[in-house]
Amino acid sequence: MSKVTVGIIGAGRIGQLHARNILLSDNYQLKGISDVYTDHIKDIEFLQAVPVITNEADDIFHDPEIDAIFICSSTDTHIDFITKAAQNKKHIFCEKPISFDIEKTRSVLETVKEHDVKFQVGFNRRFDHHFRKAYDVVREGTIGTPHIIKITSRDPEAPPEEYIKRSGGLFIDMAIHDFDMIRYLSGQPVQNITVKAASLVDEKFSRNQDVDTAIITITFADGSLGVIDNSRQAVYGYDQRIEVFGNQGMVQVENEKPTNVKISTSLTVTEDKPKYFFLERYNEGYIAEINEFAQSILSDRPVLATFEDGLQAELLALAARKSWQENRTVELTEFDR
Amino acid sequence: MSKVTVGIIGAGRIGQLHARNILLSDNYQLKGISDVYTDHIKDIEFLQAVPVITNEADDIFHDPEIDAIFICSSTDTHIDFITKAAQNKKHIFCEKPISFDIEKTRSVLETVKEHDVKFQVGFNRRFDHHFRKAYDVVREGTIGTPHIIKITSRDPEAPPEEYIKRSGGLFIDMAIHDFDMIRYLSGQPVQNITVKAASLVDEKFSRNQDVDTAIITITFADGSLGVIDNSRQAVYGYDQRIEVFGNQGMVQVENEKPTNVKISTSLTVTEDKPKYFFLERYNEGYIAEINEFAQSILSDRPVLATFEDGLQAELLALAARKSWQENRTVELTEFDR
Amino acid sequence: MSKVTVGIIGAGRIGQLHARNILLSDNYQLKGISDVYTDHIKDIEFLQAVPVITNEADDIFHDPEIDAIFICSSTDTHIDFITKAAQNKKHIFCEKPISFDIEKTRSVLETVKEHDVKFQVGFNRRFDHHFRKAYDVVREGTIGTPHIIKITSRDPEAPPEEYIKRSGGLFIDMAIHDFDMIRYLSGQPVQNITVKAASLVDEKFSRNQDVDTAIITITFADGSLGVIDNSRQAVYGYDQRIEVFGNQGMVQVENEKPTNVKISTSLTVTEDKPKYFFLERYNEGYIAEINEFAQSILSDRPVLATFEDGLQAELLALAARKSWQENRTVELTEFDR
Amino acid sequence: MSKVTVGIIGAGRIGQLHARNILLSDNYQLKGISDVYTDHIKDIEFLQAVPVITNEADDIFHDPEIDAIFICSSTDTHIDFITKAAQNKKHIFCEKPISFDIEKTRSVLETVKEHDVKFQVGFNRRFDHHFRKAYDVVREGTIGTPHIIKITSRDPEAPPEEYIKRSGGLFIDMAIHDFDMIRYLSGQPVQNITVKAASLVDEKFSRNQDVDTAIITITFADGSLGVIDNSRQAVYGYDQRIEVFGNQGMVQVENEKPTNVKISTSLTVTEDKPKYFFLERYNEGYIAEINEFAQSILSDRPVLATFEDGLQAELLALAARKSWQENRTVELTEFDR
Repeated sequence: MSKVTVGIIGAGRIGQLHARNILLSDNYQLKGISDVYTDHIKDIEFLQAVPVITNEADDIFHDPEIDAIFICSSTDTHIDFITKAAQNKKHIFCEKPISFDIEKTRSVLETVKEHDVKFQVGFNRRFDHHFRKAYDVVREGTIGTPHIIKITSRDPEAPPEEYIKRSGGLFIDMAIHDFDMIRYLSGQPVQNITVKAASLVDEKFSRNQDVDTAIITITFADGSLGVIDNSRQAVYGYDQRIEVFGNQGMVQVENEKPTNVKISTSLTVTEDKPKYFFLERYNEGYIAEINEFAQSILSDRPVLATFEDGLQAELLALAARKSWQENRTVELTEFDR
Repeated sequence: MSKVTVGIIGAGRIGQLHARNILLSDNYQLKGISDVYTDHIKDIEFLQAVPVITNEADDIFHDPEIDAIFICSSTDTHIDFITKAAQNKKHIFCEKPISFDIEKTRSVLETVKEHDVKFQVGFNRRFDHHFRKAYDVVREGTIGTPHIIKITSRDPEAPPEEYIKRSGGLFIDMAIHDFDMIRYLSGQPVQNITVKAASLVDEKFSRNQDVDTAIITITFADGSLGVIDNSRQAVYGYDQRIEVFGNQGMVQVENEKPTNVKISTSLTVTEDKPKYFFLERYNEGYIAEINEFAQSILSDRPVLATFEDGLQAELLALAARKSWQENRTVELTEFDR
Repeated sequence: MSKVTVGIIGAGRIGQLHARNILLSDNYQLKGISDVYTDHIKDIEFLQAVPVITNEADDIFHDPEIDAIFICSSTDTHIDFITKAAQNKKHIFCEKPISFDIEKTRSVLETVKEHDVKFQVGFNRRFDHHFRKAYDVVREGTIGTPHIIKITSRDPEAPPEEYIKRSGGLFIDMAIHDFDMIRYLSGQPVQNITVKAASLVDEKFSRNQDVDTAIITITFADGSLGVIDNSRQAVYGYDQRIEVFGNQGMVQVENEKPTNVKISTSLTVTEDKPKYFFLERYNEGYIAEINEFAQSILSDRPVLATFEDGLQAELLALAARKSWQENRTVELTEFDR
Repeated sequence: MSKVTVGIIGAGRIGQLHARNILLSDNYQLKGISDVYTDHIKDIEFLQAVPVITNEADDIFHDPEIDAIFICSSTDTHIDFITKAAQNKKHIFCEKPISFDIEKTRSVLETVKEHDVKFQVGFNRRFDHHFRKAYDVVREGTIGTPHIIKITSRDPEAPPEEYIKRSGGLFIDMAIHDFDMIRYLSGQPVQNITVKAASLVDEKFSRNQDVDTAIITITFADGSLGVIDNSRQAVYGYDQRIEVFGNQGMVQVENEKPTNVKISTSLTVTEDKPKYFFLERYNEGYIAEINEFAQSILSDRPVLATFEDGLQAELLALAARKSWQENRTVELTEFDR
């Protein structure tokens, strides 16, 4: 096998993003795409060459040519589609979060293991070249043992209320990427989590029992500390910074800007704002993650964002929500089965 | 009165620092300096012109020419010396913390009020021109309402164990500056505080029931959030950064470096590390704070770092220690009398 | 016509670069590629799908399906191939320099005009998004009237001696891009040029009557000034900076770095070196220039890097060489026909 | 001698600057100050304690207590005052330029040598800590052999026409600092100089046979190159940057800003403009230069900015003016006696 033949379930924003990158990649053959609604697909020019466009997901699962499935449908369908994909011996790339129900997530992990298929979860930031370099610097020991890991993660604008209602809330929808990144950078198991959060940006969050601003503190097993600050609205653009501080130094990742242009006038000196949002900021990371997934299949090597990583991040989101609701530190052991 | 005649109590590191700046200032006449030990003063050339050098603090308090007293002695002597200064109608500049005992601090505030003398507490960072500009930007409304205030405050190296023993611990000794700064930037009363901390740098902290690394989360009365991260050892130098994030923007203060030199070679691109420690970083702020104190006396205007500011920062340090010890969020109301 | 069908003449480094970008572009159909040697093409996987691979350039020129030709062969063949392309009514994208002989360049311009085909010269830096933004800032008047335009343009390492021998020298081979950029940013005709240059990097330059280091000063028609500094070897990477200083401000473009990672240790603070060379630095610009060329054909609009731009940059290279050889300021009028 | 007793000739802007720094320095005793007009001195509070205030320069020269003279009067008086100081065996600190007449400068050098007094010229930038570090980096060999040295030197606003008339022109008045700095950084003798210049900022320059904008190219004896760009008006503030590019790397000095504050809003990201002008930018350098002069006397060690340095910079200014006027490269040997 020199290319991976894939089918995509879900032709929404993220499904289309992966479809485009798959079509541009030498590692893939895109065989089919399914969605409950297929009308809008006719208007997407670059999808016209896809052989199978269907509103029956089973057409994808049962296609014998298809090696791997990208699950890009809504979160509530993930468990069912993962199960079907595994049962049909398809490798699985699944968007985050795996599900809203930790028990179901744990259960479907067994199914995936049983059928021995590759499973990569869509933690695209692990494949960002800036963060990857910071990760490498930490692993090489340049900054010694991490003592404090800081992540700033702020969206440029609040989503619509309809989105908020179905999002699962800030912790599972937005901070889940940060939970994964802080685990990734640390390499240590999380011991407990403490959240202070509020709805300061817009009342549409509070009236949906959600928050838009949070400070999340994490204690790792070795006693080192992590802190994430989130906001649903940074008016200057997508704010995505990390800092790992250790006993021998510090590594920092600053925001990416569209250009390196600096303008000096009699009034002020200005530079570009950060890139607008995830599509601009993580464009290269989205490409890298699918090619790495292809290589894990083609060369039969481990994926770099595993089911276990998805599960752990989900646990952290769950624990974060509990910490916020109960106004106390939550131990991760509280979620042991 | 065109100059303020002062006496200094305590000729240790900070007392000498103020003495030198007072001697260089047009606003001051330095009349006397006292210390329990005066031998070492003979070796300090710039102090030779001070008319009164004594090991009797009372010589300073009873000198009728002296308008104001700088209390730079050890923290356990502050209450007594503040009382004496007030009773002798001397204006008071007192180093932080005011005391280790919040009840005594509250009590001596009454004495200061009763005798109607000026009182400024040594929160030198309020007078740093970088932080002052950030403060002004916030007050002018450029970034809207603050949602998240972040302070990074890390010392370049751990103090000796003898110092640790008498320091009162990280929260009162080191973080007290950050507590004041976060209150200053926010302008909101603190509602509660939550601390996660550890001894990761050196066992000399843990064996003295102290910590060297901390993440401190603060909830303000309006629901906005603050977070401070502290370490006793940043090997790259004194790390002093602030960030105020609001609903209309963000203001950040980066570290000061000795020079703006950048070196590019075939291996790497390097720039200077941050300035080494507080004497280098806050040199100008120390000068500004004493001149502002002089002006508050000469022009009879309010001081910019009040007794109340000192008291509130002390309360936060107390609450922080309690939060760490009891592993829970501590409400500031728990300290109401 | 919804896509431009193209043939490429020359399958060397730059020909392959354009071929790859053409294959990835929605604006193009790649019909054929020719080279005097075609053996190596068999090893280039992404070229296998090209219908026509030939060592006869005429197969390309005479193919009736082909709308446009990319001339990527050695400079000494350009005049002949431009002539053939124009005579066969093919639009032309030609790499820089158009030729080493200004009279021939002028002459073939007439041929191009006569046959009324589009002609774009390969000044890829005009399509770089950083430089484009600086250009826009200047045109919008933000910095007022330009007084001084500065370009730093240094290669990361010297080319092999064989390359130097056939390159035409630093001015026509390397600085030609800078001549175009300085004209582009200024918008003013050049009046005269003054060069000081030396062979400091390697004797292989001097023994081929070439230089490796140069300071080039340009006087524009309105009296404003430009200065270019060139080196064949910047050990820290490809150094590509511009600065336009005007009576109301300044705009600067800094180098692009691979990542925004900053590492602080007890020794130093380091960041990434600039991107290595033109393939890394101008990757996006190369893509943008071919898509802009396609749009100029598909929408029949003017190209953004014209034959005249190529001719003027060539004149500047010629004048620069003369200035260096004769150690004097050379007026551009000396080259009037 | 533990302190240097000094007299100052000239109580204008630069004389007052030195007087203040001398008064604050432990290395000096300020005995007297003379000016043709002494009325305004009465209004300068910090000068009231100076024992001798006189409008007779001879009172200073003949004062037996005075060890050293600071010559801060107008340039046309320098030769006469240097002569008198030397004849009276006073060490000399003289502002730049030494004179407007190179033959007189050469002649008075003999007088200074004959009387064997220290002589330091006021090239304050050599004592700036940023530039000093760059100098050290070059001397330590970190960037190898310098190939290109670049200096950007732009004033924030044009001086009044009265000043221009008596200034001697841009090259001797303003660029002389850059001539010294480029010699200092290079360490090589200058071989020739080539100037392109214009009056673009204001007609008051052209109508006084002066220029306000210049590109100055220098060839050093080893073939390496230097380039200075000057403007009398950078609306964003005092622009003082240097860059030394060598065969093993590059060292750059960026502008100093008043604060490290960065503000991000929905419109843009802004930081401080450079410091306004030389008083703000070189404040520390002015202090360092006088203390270094004192040490050269007290410890009898060579000065760091010698008469020869002043003479060479003057020669460069003269050659630059000639190059501009005659529109050609001027060899320094043309000025050999």
